[in-house]
Amino acid sequence: MLYFIGLGLGDAKDITVKGLEIVKQCSRVYLEAYTSILTVGKDALEEYYGRELILADRDMVEQEADEILKGADVSDVAFLVVGDPFGATTHSDLVLRAVNAGIQYRVIHNASIMNAVGCCGLQLYNFGETVSIVFWTDTWRPESFYDKIKKNRDLGMHTLCLLALLFLSADIKVKEQSMENLMRGRKIYEPARFMTVSQAAEQLLEIVQNRRERGDDLAISEETICVGLARVGAEDQVIRAGTLRQLASCDLGGPLHSMIVTGHLHPLEVDMLRLSAATPDALQDLRMTDSSTYTS
Amino acid sequence: MLYFIGLGLGDAKDITVKGLEIVKQCSRVYLEAYTSILTVGKDALEEYYGRELILADRDMVEQEADEILKGADVSDVAFLVVGDPFGATTHSDLVLRAVNAGIQYRVIHNASIMNAVGCCGLQLYNFGETVSIVFWTDTWRPESFYDKIKKNRDLGMHTLCLLALLFLSADIKVKEQSMENLMRGRKIYEPARFMTVSQAAEQLLEIVQNRRERGDDLAISEETICVGLARVGAEDQVIRAGTLRQLASCDLGGPLHSMIVTGHLHPLEVDMLRLSAATPDALQDLRMTDSSTYTS
Repeated sequence: MLYFIGLGLGDAKDITVKGLEIVKQCSRVYLEAYTSILTVGKDALEEYYGRELILADRDMVEQEADEILKGADVSDVAFLVVGDPFGATTHSDLVLRAVNAGIQYRVIHNASIMNAVGCCGLQLYNFGETVSIVFWTDTWRPESFYDKIKKNRDLGMHTLCLLALLFLSADIKVKEQSMENLMRGRKIYEPARFMTVSQAAEQLLEIVQNRRERGDDLAISEETICVGLARVGAEDQVIRAGTLRQLASCDLGGPLHSMIVTGHLHPLEVDMLRLSAATPDALQDLRMTDSSTYTS
Repeated sequence: MLYFIGLGLGDAKDITVKGLEIVKQCSRVYLEAYTSILTVGKDALEEYYGRELILADRDMVEQEADEILKGADVSDVAFLVVGDPFGATTHSDLVLRAVNAGIQYRVIHNASIMNAVGCCGLQLYNFGETVSIVFWTDTWRPESFYDKIKKNRDLGMHTLCLLALLFLSADIKVKEQSMENLMRGRKIYEPARFMTVSQAAEQLLEIVQNRRERGDDLAISEETICVGLARVGAEDQVIRAGTLRQLASCDLGGPLHSMIVTGHLHPLEVDMLRLSAATPDALQDLRMTDSSTYTS
């Protein structure tokens, strides 16, 4: 049996009791380590689970899947994934390879950023398509995520923006060191490692400015209410609600960050956002503004 | 501290290790028992947790919230929720009451149907607004969920349909008995208790027929690919992919059920759906049809 086991979002103890029991009895345990991170690293997980973990990077899962599947028809192999195995990233390819090889699989679910964002008080019902925001370079500045946010806002829906998390892969040594740093939760702020809410907000502000200059119908402005989230599910989780402009100057600390661009806000959602207002001013703004004006 | 603890979707062992540790040390533990159910009931949870659970129905949470919050400023109280505390249903009202009473709160996340549906192979990225389908009566036959599904399909997005789960509340005795039945996972099929995928598909087929007679532009037809899901996350989970017409005659067994109306299907999503095709015919249809034709 191949078990896909979600680890949740915080630390070693966010695994489910069922997941932990399976980890302890599997013959090999892989840790998928290229799409997300916990606030603790491989060492902490190994110590808590009492098991050696094999780091599975993207190359391994894509090119050496047979290695992962080896023997899973006669013994149990676990593939651990931060969040839920079918959350922000799916592992459909590995599932299909297993099935084609006659190997049964089972999923042990857990929280992922896709549902845990509900803790900010915005209702999951009211989210449209999720978007990813990538790091811009001097020559590559895609704006397609803005158009998806616009479509959602036109329908009154909120948009969850997943922010880039980069593992350098040109040099295998650099890759592993960086990954270890991130996975141990060291507070590192090198550029081009993980995108902060502030950086995402700045990119979005630049697009807003570009579109304004072109004379486009604006879906978002500097005053659009957004929510920045950092380390959701961890002890030091931070949530900040404020205008897009305010979030551009927020520092929410270490990885991972994500951001929500709100659509139409229900009064109960406004009440919840007040609990995490970015500044006393932002709180005041939220109190004074009629929620219906947030619809684009 | 007031802890909101997600129980996940299957049985007693789907709670996280962190959640279980907190349950064991709280002075009182409430079980929210009016929005969803596990495949095991209160008795099984009490035995596994080694704690007495206080059933909290909707009336209690809405009208006797002070009772739940009592003492939570000086001791720890847990409020257990099937799925994630901020998944399909949010408990914002209780959060706000706690904060207003000067009580700190913390959320222990878990899987909810909102992210666990990813296990069928459809990417969570590609879901639009979630809808709820209620039981029709002779005189109340709302069709608004159809219009939301149409909006999603117009954008190529999938739609998760949460299906009605009713706890009779007119007679308190009946309510508790029915709830206990459901929570103990007894295979009961009384009408008007939980909606099956088959019933949801039939209601949708009737709307399709109504709209066709009116000459509306159809967003969905009898041949639209849908996915039925039952007891997601449990050992006896069932997933069936097929046309809307096929799902109308599927029997997926006991509660809870949910259904997805697909939008545009990516080839990898089609490959995954084949694993749970409703019938060999449905499998054949999926193989033979170009995925791009699934866009409305």
